[in-house]
Amino acid sequence: MNRTRLEAFSDGVIAILITIMVLELRPPEGATLAALTHEEGHLLASFLAYVLSFVYLGIYWSNHHHLMHTVDRVNGAMLWANLHLLFWLSLVPFATAWMGKLHGHELPAAFYGGVLLMAAIAYYILVRIIIAEQLRHSGGTQSKLQEAIGSEVKGIVSIVMYVAGMGLAFVNQWLSDAIYIAVALMWLVPDRRIERRVA
Amino acid sequence: MNRTRLEAFSDGVIAILITIMVLELRPPEGATLAALTHEEGHLLASFLAYVLSFVYLGIYWSNHHHLMHTVDRVNGAMLWANLHLLFWLSLVPFATAWMGKLHGHELPAAFYGGVLLMAAIAYYILVRIIIAEQLRHSGGTQSKLQEAIGSEVKGIVSIVMYVAGMGLAFVNQWLSDAIYIAVALMWLVPDRRIERRVA
Amino acid sequence: MNRTRLEAFSDGVIAILITIMVLELRPPEGATLAALTHEEGHLLASFLAYVLSFVYLGIYWSNHHHLMHTVDRVNGAMLWANLHLLFWLSLVPFATAWMGKLHGHELPAAFYGGVLLMAAIAYYILVRIIIAEQLRHSGGTQSKLQEAIGSEVKGIVSIVMYVAGMGLAFVNQWLSDAIYIAVALMWLVPDRRIERRVA
Amino acid sequence: MNRTRLEAFSDGVIAILITIMVLELRPPEGATLAALTHEEGHLLASFLAYVLSFVYLGIYWSNHHHLMHTVDRVNGAMLWANLHLLFWLSLVPFATAWMGKLHGHELPAAFYGGVLLMAAIAYYILVRIIIAEQLRHSGGTQSKLQEAIGSEVKGIVSIVMYVAGMGLAFVNQWLSDAIYIAVALMWLVPDRRIERRVA
Repeated sequence: MNRTRLEAFSDGVIAILITIMVLELRPPEGATLAALTHEEGHLLASFLAYVLSFVYLGIYWSNHHHLMHTVDRVNGAMLWANLHLLFWLSLVPFATAWMGKLHGHELPAAFYGGVLLMAAIAYYILVRIIIAEQLRHSGGTQSKLQEAIGSEVKGIVSIVMYVAGMGLAFVNQWLSDAIYIAVALMWLVPDRRIERRVA
Repeated sequence: MNRTRLEAFSDGVIAILITIMVLELRPPEGATLAALTHEEGHLLASFLAYVLSFVYLGIYWSNHHHLMHTVDRVNGAMLWANLHLLFWLSLVPFATAWMGKLHGHELPAAFYGGVLLMAAIAYYILVRIIIAEQLRHSGGTQSKLQEAIGSEVKGIVSIVMYVAGMGLAFVNQWLSDAIYIAVALMWLVPDRRIERRVA
Repeated sequence: MNRTRLEAFSDGVIAILITIMVLELRPPEGATLAALTHEEGHLLASFLAYVLSFVYLGIYWSNHHHLMHTVDRVNGAMLWANLHLLFWLSLVPFATAWMGKLHGHELPAAFYGGVLLMAAIAYYILVRIIIAEQLRHSGGTQSKLQEAIGSEVKGIVSIVMYVAGMGLAFVNQWLSDAIYIAVALMWLVPDRRIERRVA
Repeated sequence: MNRTRLEAFSDGVIAILITIMVLELRPPEGATLAALTHEEGHLLASFLAYVLSFVYLGIYWSNHHHLMHTVDRVNGAMLWANLHLLFWLSLVPFATAWMGKLHGHELPAAFYGGVLLMAAIAYYILVRIIIAEQLRHSGGTQSKLQEAIGSEVKGIVSIVMYVAGMGLAFVNQWLSDAIYIAVALMWLVPDRRIERRVA
């Protein structure tokens, strides 16, 4: 399989996910500021959850692009590791809607972290499979992706933080929010890590 | 018509189908584990149905790609055979939602199998039309797709199993579930069948 | 503007329209055959309307492709004539849902024909604009599209039939259904008209 | 990052936005003209709001294309400025649905203008970032985009008019409607501004 179609399909799925999330934001029945912020549906919390998830999906789309940039040929394992990643990302709108609607409750906040955790693990698996294939193809000497990534500290830190966020959701939901936001901020930079090497 | 636009359109439709299915998973009203699993809407059954349909659409997308890889030019018959396949795939979200919502009932489980059956038949027709065109074009001597596929045992076995699953849905829905899962597992491998020959 | 991006955008919109129509088919509350066919929402009529609209959007997608095949460069007028066509096509899901839900009523059946009529007119305008540009560009001597189309009888017949279908909707809805189906059948062939010339 | 994937992703998001807006137009329960225009949901106002937003998204898509046409390479800043623009555009369906449903109320009309305002600012930031990068890359001597745009009067006029429209929404909603329509009409022309230079 050539890389282009895998990219196009992944782009399509992520573009749809990032867009249908907005369908969860239902226009309020009233025309007042109170309706916008306090009406049933808790639009303000839903909106902030939407912003956070939009940024996360943007990060995944951007990193996914850089990842694929180092891939020359796609095999079956990569294809399914990629679909596995898309599967967990596809649950982001659901998790976002639940957390937005019931902000301040324990389980929705932990569930949101759980979906992010699974997506991070799926991304990690995809990276490992691509590197393994590149090493195998070059007789174990070279992987463009491994060189580009350097270390995987950031991926592992994210996973630890998601687990912490899930645990803290049962203590105080603002703490878990803070952690989810911190991970997003941490990832807004590192695109350049791969970008620089590729360039 | 060139192959690229047919692929892009099919990718688009499958990407949208795989994604809008998730809109059927409605976030529960409550914030408890019981709400997540037992609330009206039977979220757990819906989720498992979603996973199965996600895998099926992933398989179709992947196999469709390999199929198209052997096609040099698209004629009107292929175009409509392809739209016919997309039509049956477009009913997957509906069938998934109905089976998820009313798991343990006969008709939704049989209907789900029926949609898979029609999609399998549509796929089979598309394969036959591509092979016929390739043979016609080469004066009856050669079809890249036929060589790549070798035998069509797997396609025929699937069709038989879907029919069995539909019948068993009226006996025990867990049996029909098992059959639908078995067919999916059977297809998770054979991408490579074509892939190897093409490479 | 290059043709590729116009095609990709149009493909995207049509792929989404053809897919979101299926969201109007709501899985019934009951698990019986009666629920599938007679429950509130009139699923059977909705399903048949869905099939018809799926075929129409398939025809537009296919013809649109052949149309664009003759275009070398896209100007602003073509771009907006194309968006105008997409606008009317975007109302197909709405018209389909209304006619499906209230089959046997006059206005929804006439409205459905009205949307098809406007789409046909928009298509006709797009054709005229492309031909005018091609003639202008070649000093009035040549238009690849005009040669490919030959005569425009079929487009004009369609428009007349849609108007007839709209009128007959107020007499008997089965007659207007028959006319909408007849126009679709008439168009299932003529892709080849352009295809042959282009090849 | 290469330009093609950024364009494809942006096209995808805009195509989805322009299409899912139509999901807000719910087919009426009744089959009469009164149902179509006066039923709960105020379909006529919703329809007109849909038309306006369709035109706006068409303008953004078209201008976005021309913008990207001058870009040779995409860096991280452009990528996020582009996602920022898509974020505000993603709120257009929400704002459209609210204004359509509650036309004649102050806040929804002002909110609609606010979303357009933020999208215009996001577009302006994207333009500035592209120009800065082009100047930096050429040692401060040349920016293809800056030459193509000439002056930025139109962008600034739009921003001023959106602010005026938001203010007038609290006086008379028809005035703010008129302003939003006027800005759209103003932009239906100027694609050619860049197009001419690029050609």
